[in-house]
Amino acid sequence: MAEKRTGKVLLVGAGPGDPRLITWRGLEALASADAVCYDALVDPTLIATLPPSVERHYVGKRAGGHSMPQDEINALLIRLAREGKVVVRLKGGDPFIFGRGGEEALALREAEVPFEVVPGVTAASAATACAGIPLTHRGASAFALLFTAHETPGKPAGEAEVPHDLLARAGEGTLVGYMGVRRLNELVKSLLDNGMDPSTPAALIERGSTPRQKQVSAALAELPRAAEEEGIQPPALFVAGRVVRLAGVLSWKGAGPLGGRRILVTRPCDVAGEIYDLLAREGAEVVPAPAILTEAREDPEGWAHLREVLPEGGWLIFTSEAGVRFFFARFRRIARDLRALAAMRIAVLGRGTASALAERGLAA
Amino acid sequence: MAEKRTGKVLLVGAGPGDPRLITWRGLEALASADAVCYDALVDPTLIATLPPSVERHYVGKRAGGHSMPQDEINALLIRLAREGKVVVRLKGGDPFIFGRGGEEALALREAEVPFEVVPGVTAASAATACAGIPLTHRGASAFALLFTAHETPGKPAGEAEVPHDLLARAGEGTLVGYMGVRRLNELVKSLLDNGMDPSTPAALIERGSTPRQKQVSAALAELPRAAEEEGIQPPALFVAGRVVRLAGVLSWKGAGPLGGRRILVTRPCDVAGEIYDLLAREGAEVVPAPAILTEAREDPEGWAHLREVLPEGGWLIFTSEAGVRFFFARFRRIARDLRALAAMRIAVLGRGTASALAERGLAA
Repeated sequence: MAEKRTGKVLLVGAGPGDPRLITWRGLEALASADAVCYDALVDPTLIATLPPSVERHYVGKRAGGHSMPQDEINALLIRLAREGKVVVRLKGGDPFIFGRGGEEALALREAEVPFEVVPGVTAASAATACAGIPLTHRGASAFALLFTAHETPGKPAGEAEVPHDLLARAGEGTLVGYMGVRRLNELVKSLLDNGMDPSTPAALIERGSTPRQKQVSAALAELPRAAEEEGIQPPALFVAGRVVRLAGVLSWKGAGPLGGRRILVTRPCDVAGEIYDLLAREGAEVVPAPAILTEAREDPEGWAHLREVLPEGGWLIFTSEAGVRFFFARFRRIARDLRALAAMRIAVLGRGTASALAERGLAA
Repeated sequence: MAEKRTGKVLLVGAGPGDPRLITWRGLEALASADAVCYDALVDPTLIATLPPSVERHYVGKRAGGHSMPQDEINALLIRLAREGKVVVRLKGGDPFIFGRGGEEALALREAEVPFEVVPGVTAASAATACAGIPLTHRGASAFALLFTAHETPGKPAGEAEVPHDLLARAGEGTLVGYMGVRRLNELVKSLLDNGMDPSTPAALIERGSTPRQKQVSAALAELPRAAEEEGIQPPALFVAGRVVRLAGVLSWKGAGPLGGRRILVTRPCDVAGEIYDLLAREGAEVVPAPAILTEAREDPEGWAHLREVLPEGGWLIFTSEAGVRFFFARFRRIARDLRALAAMRIAVLGRGTASALAERGLAA
């Protein structure tokens, strides 16, 4: 009987928004993937820079918007793994903190599909860090309570409730809510009804850690009005506690020269990684919008001609970085090493082409 | 008046133990550093692979052991930045979650030293993920409370206390303690006294995410005895709540073929990164113990001789990868590009040397 080859699933946290807050292990997982299933909150440059051979499955899940039901996601992961693939399930934040990673892990275990979990930086630590709010701080907060306002619909009574009287006391430390902005009024009313001090410093942080991070601070009772005035949109994080006051002193994140700009990059994704990174460092929000796909052309005659010309010399003209890449990917088939080009004269078009050549130890 | 050049400080979370759980941004920060100040809980391979030119300052802080007082650490960061250096303050976990990063940030702000915060994966999410315990889970836990048993000595009464009656209720969600194992008895007694259910599933996870991760699960009331029997040592994480039961089903982390082995690598640090990584993947705990330091030798006569010989040809023999590296780092001074080697015959000693050469497009 032929044994069925099974792949595996890596449940990977992509971090809180800034693509560079993914872990090294997460990047390795992506580099090893045959298929990737990703959420709306995952930065698009992480997906765009994957090799074209990687299968991509968008499974939605933006709060309030259209999304694939959880059991369909589970079934998709199992199917792909059973096809023998290394599947990366890429989730915003951390898979096991309000990421439903536990449900996916249980489904995989039941289907006997091997899996691994790669934790990620969760929104609670990243959004606050970027806003200058330490979650714990000597003399101000010795604990943090993380909760979500998205209750499970139809769960059994008395199970997995978020007890609001307990939340109301968490302002003695730090209270952090992963929540729909739309439920802010409801939440604040309930906290106040449960006895939370209306003057507790509170904040709402929209799109924490990304170039479009935006935040508003106010006393708890005033927060809903302040958030509405500032037009805070989901996804946003709610924070309450004495530590929120430190944001006034410790806020450090400047917008950068390109802050607030959304930039579409039309460069082919396979070579755009560096540009994405450069723009993101300057504060831009990068949207991959590749307009060109470059592919190596099979040209047996051309190569045969080069082989003939090599010993006697001639001109070799590179017109693009892609040309350099494709040329040297195949050059080994006809020559032992670069010294075979000794009799050739080399010319390039453009500085990028020249430096791609220089990286290979050749000068034009 | 000459303007005083000021550097900056990056407060970077190194992650929970496994060096590959540092963020991409954290790796970039290390690559840009002139000086690094690091804690005991930071994986030594992250420090060992830094270029020799980077200043290293070990500032201790292992629980219970000897460590540099916080105000001396603050003063050190400020002094280094005022020398114009890019300083990375590398901390285990996340700087703002029980990492005293807030205190350092305040000291830097007061000294007018620019700083940034790079969040990291905190122990609460990594240790539990590696143990198969989702911090939140549908129907089992809708919130998580993170606390530390290390109280601040001498803090004003009523400020930043961890209220144990509130902790005792956190088992309705998930209670996570960053704590001294030595205080486990005290903590459990206090939780039970405050009314926590003695049968609440609980666990202690030692060295979460590292190759030496070790864990014990038991009902809350039984945990201290179970932990003692298993000989759990600090640093360890305490978890309590219904989700702990899932560890029995979801635990996925195998030991790997080298699991539990501690391996000293004597290779020079500047070229050992790949070996560190390979061993760590197989489950070993890697301890950098470089026995050799390789340095390029100035040899003007040798290079002058090569320059003469180049056109007529001769033998070029590489005996080590380091030799290949140093040769090509200087080769540009005497020739335009690799084609200048056309007349030479090349030989190598060893497979590693051959592949270092092949990476440069040359064959021996």
